[in-house]
Order: sequence, then C-alpha cells, then structure tokens
Amino acid sequence: MNVVHAPPDSARPDKAASKARLRLWLKILKVSRLIERELRERLRVEFDTTLPRFDVLAALYRVEKGLNMSELSAVLKVSNGNVTGIVDRLVADALIVRVPVEGDRRAMIVRLTEKGREHFSVLARAHEGWVNELLGSLEAADADELRGLLARIGAGHEERMAGE
Amino acid sequence: MNVVHAPPDSARPDKAASKARLRLWLKILKVSRLIERELRERLRVEFDTTLPRFDVLAALYRVEKGLNMSELSAVLKVSNGNVTGIVDRLVADALIVRVPVEGDRRAMIVRLTEKGREHFSVLARAHEGWVNELLGSLEAADADELRGLLARIGAGHEERMAGE
Repeated sequence: MNVVHAPPDSARPDKAASKARLRLWLKILKVSRLIERELRERLRVEFDTTLPRFDVLAALYRVEKGLNMSELSAVLKVSNGNVTGIVDRLVADALIVRVPVEGDRRAMIVRLTEKGREHFSVLARAHEGWVNELLGSLEAADADELRGLLARIGAGHEERMAGE
Repeated sequence: MNVVHAPPDSARPDKAASKARLRLWLKILKVSRLIERELRERLRVEFDTTLPRFDVLAALYRVEKGLNMSELSAVLKVSNGNVTGIVDRLVADALIVRVPVEGDRRAMIVRLTEKGREHFSVLARAHEGWVNELLGSLEAADADELRGLLARIGAGHEERMAGE
C-alpha cells in the first residue's frame, strides 16, 4: 500500500509518531511481500507446488489425528486457497486421505498419508533453508529482537479484539 | 505459512540462527496479514472500496502527470488486482481519466481527476489513522528501530538480486 508522505511536522510528536508508524507499516508490507513472492516462486520451481498446498500439509503435519474441513478452511484463509479443490488434489496425489470421524458417520477429517508426511518433511527442510538464506542478513540476536518488537504489534491487536 | 518446529539444537549456532530466522519470518507473515486484513476490512466498511483501488489511487496521487498501464500493473502486482477492471471502474466513478500521451497517438496514460485527488486525500488520512492505531503499541523510536532492522532484510535481498 503506497501512501503519500506529507512533510514531517516535528513540532508535533504525535504527528511524527503517526508518520513513523506509517513508514514502518509500508516496510513490513514490502518485506513480507518480497519474501512471500520468493517462497511461492521457489515452491513452484523446485517442487511444482503452491503455498496453499504447503500450508495444508504443514497444518496436517502438526496434527497427526487430522483436521476437519472447517479447521482447514481457517488455515487456508490466510493463503487465499480454495480448500475443497486443494484437498481434492492432495487426495489424488495420495498425500492425504479422507477418513470418517469415529462416532459421527457423516463427518470426515483429512490427514497425511505416510507419503504425505515424507513429502512435507522434504518441503519443510527446503523452506527453512530458503528463509534462512533470505533473512541471512540478520544475526540470530537481531532476528529475536525484531520478532519481539513485532510481537508487541500482534499483542496490541489481540488486546483490542478482546476489549471489543 | 506454518511450519513444524524441530527441537532447538543449541549445540549448533547456525542451526539456532536458522530457527530464529524461521520464527521471525512466521511472525512477519502473521503481523502483516493481520494488519492487511484489518485495513482491507476498514476500506470496505467505511469507504466501500478495496486495497487494489486504494493502491492505484495512491500511485497516481504521487505522480501528477499520470502513469501508463504497465506502470500501474507493476503497482498492482503486489495487491493482486486486475488492472484493467480496476481502471475501468475508477474511470466510471470519475476518479481517474484516460488521456492520450503527447507525441504518441496510440499510447494512453491514466491520471487522477480533481475529484479523485480529493477522494484519495480523505482515504489516505483515514488509512494513516488506522495504521497509527493498529501499530499504536510501538513508540516512534521503536517503530524506527524495527523499520531499520527490516530494511536490512530488504537490502540483503536487493544485493542478492544484483549479484545474480
């Protein structure tokens, strides 16, 4: 999101803080888009796969017993995927399976197959390597400091949500 | 993007740094999606508009003489908009106009109308206010520090691009 920068008004600290936060937001957006575009590209070129597929596999990797479709939808909301289409293709690729829920004959969950688990291990290792390279200009201590500052934004947001 | 966290291996500092960068990336992604979702929602609710429209208007606000379609496409690449459709609607709303390029009878540029300029001023002021609120848990000094650390990621990336 690009916004015109008005001349700084150093006589008004609240105005200066507002501009500092706006500049920060534009930088967060730029960096996240830059890295995300690079990761999408590498997933495509090196593994012929997509970020929504990666996100579904990652979510299922963490929950061995599997997830139902609405839990998966919540995961995919963030990567703009069409959950049914993605699940259908992952099933066709034998990376996940649909299984009935015990005690509820109409409900289904999806979970990783052994092949899916192995495939995701490979993807996750590559993904971590790419991130390590793309963020390589930051030492571990800087990365932790940056994460701590970002966490304050997230925490501030959650407090507001809880207060509404 | 969600990734399983292996147990930390504190005996290997490069491994620890890799995990720190991965955790940082997941946090950048989380915060940027959180803020962006909130901004999209407020643009929709309060102004019945979208982020791609906002981005086009912002780009044209900064360049009074206007931009051609490929310059606008570069702007919109980042917000996943369909440039032709967005431009058509902004023209229909009389916020922008298509004008011929001097000396090239086939080329057209688009630029803001007076109405478009006024409309964007209102949007930009609201947008800055939202960002100021959403990032309000950071003082100006923290915001600047955070931006400086993020700039190192961007700079590292640009160096790599130049070296390829």
